[in-house]
Amino acid sequence: MAVKSTNITEVAHRIDIQARWQANGHRGAVLWFTGLSGAGKTTLALELENRLFNKGFNVYVLDGDNVRHGLSSDLGFSHSDRTENIRRIGEVAALFADAGAIVITAFISPYQSDREQARQAYPEGFREIFIDADLEVCERRDPKGLYEKARKGEIPDFTGISAPYEAPSNPDLTVDSGDLTVDESLQILMDYVEETFVLK
Amino acid sequence: MAVKSTNITEVAHRIDIQARWQANGHRGAVLWFTGLSGAGKTTLALELENRLFNKGFNVYVLDGDNVRHGLSSDLGFSHSDRTENIRRIGEVAALFADAGAIVITAFISPYQSDREQARQAYPEGFREIFIDADLEVCERRDPKGLYEKARKGEIPDFTGISAPYEAPSNPDLTVDSGDLTVDESLQILMDYVEETFVLK
Repeated sequence: MAVKSTNITEVAHRIDIQARWQANGHRGAVLWFTGLSGAGKTTLALELENRLFNKGFNVYVLDGDNVRHGLSSDLGFSHSDRTENIRRIGEVAALFADAGAIVITAFISPYQSDREQARQAYPEGFREIFIDADLEVCERRDPKGLYEKARKGEIPDFTGISAPYEAPSNPDLTVDSGDLTVDESLQILMDYVEETFVLK
Repeated sequence: MAVKSTNITEVAHRIDIQARWQANGHRGAVLWFTGLSGAGKTTLALELENRLFNKGFNVYVLDGDNVRHGLSSDLGFSHSDRTENIRRIGEVAALFADAGAIVITAFISPYQSDREQARQAYPEGFREIFIDADLEVCERRDPKGLYEKARKGEIPDFTGISAPYEAPSNPDLTVDSGDLTVDESLQILMDYVEETFVLK
């Protein structure tokens, strides 16, 4: 018995990341969407996911819907909780990218330093993508009525109203979602992904 | 401009999980390995990952190496920190399964209640797999010299020595890694995955 079981402790190896990329036809990546509430992050993320999936990409979206009720259910919206939330998402996104996926994250992520920390979790494939609609446009859209509530003081620490948004100083890509249609924005994103992450 | 951008808030849809399963040829799943240090969890997880990947599965391993330095870098080994660590891993594993992957987790996860909580994050595809080698076998192997250190009191809260291990009361699968060879253990695991998660 003892002899048979000794080899259980042999060192096993992880799958080579190149083999994962070859299997998928593209590299792993973190497409980190940042922008105000109402800028279109989630809509664009989910539509981009659909288009990439239909082209055979290994792709997944992390957003408030699947993170805030689970992984970050213990966190609120204070500065320190937001920072911890973004830190965890950065680490999870890095795991997905390490598994070969293109992961799209759709979170306001208002602090530059938090986004920089997220980049450090997967520096080789992290791209900061500014979904850029200004406050006036977002507040006019107000799809969930959140700005109205925030203006009334019913939502504390609301980004753009009662909490700061630090726009990216040097984003890898900017999508002018305040002026472009969804289709136009998606075309920019699709072109970017195909140029940047598809294996030649 | 305002007209063009109004449709950004249309509801976008997530990819249907059935479409992900079809693309992969298998369902998403969480294979939750539990067992003592030295029982062979990581070795079997990584070897299983290799074999499944080579058969075209979308598969990924979460273990101490890629979780403890990142997502759970703020946590230690106290009971409450272990519980929070396992909670996070359960949530991340559920995200991977939701993305269509078979994710294998290799953590001691000594508390039954923690494992039950992890199951709740993805009940439909969670399987508790007991990597079963008893303390005597694991301590004799002691691949990393941890038991020796724990016996000397150099590692506090070491499972099996100075912290409890609650063996699964009703695991979905038991692999008798104390008696079986690595190859025999892997064959059991491969058969289980293929029978349970491959689409007919």
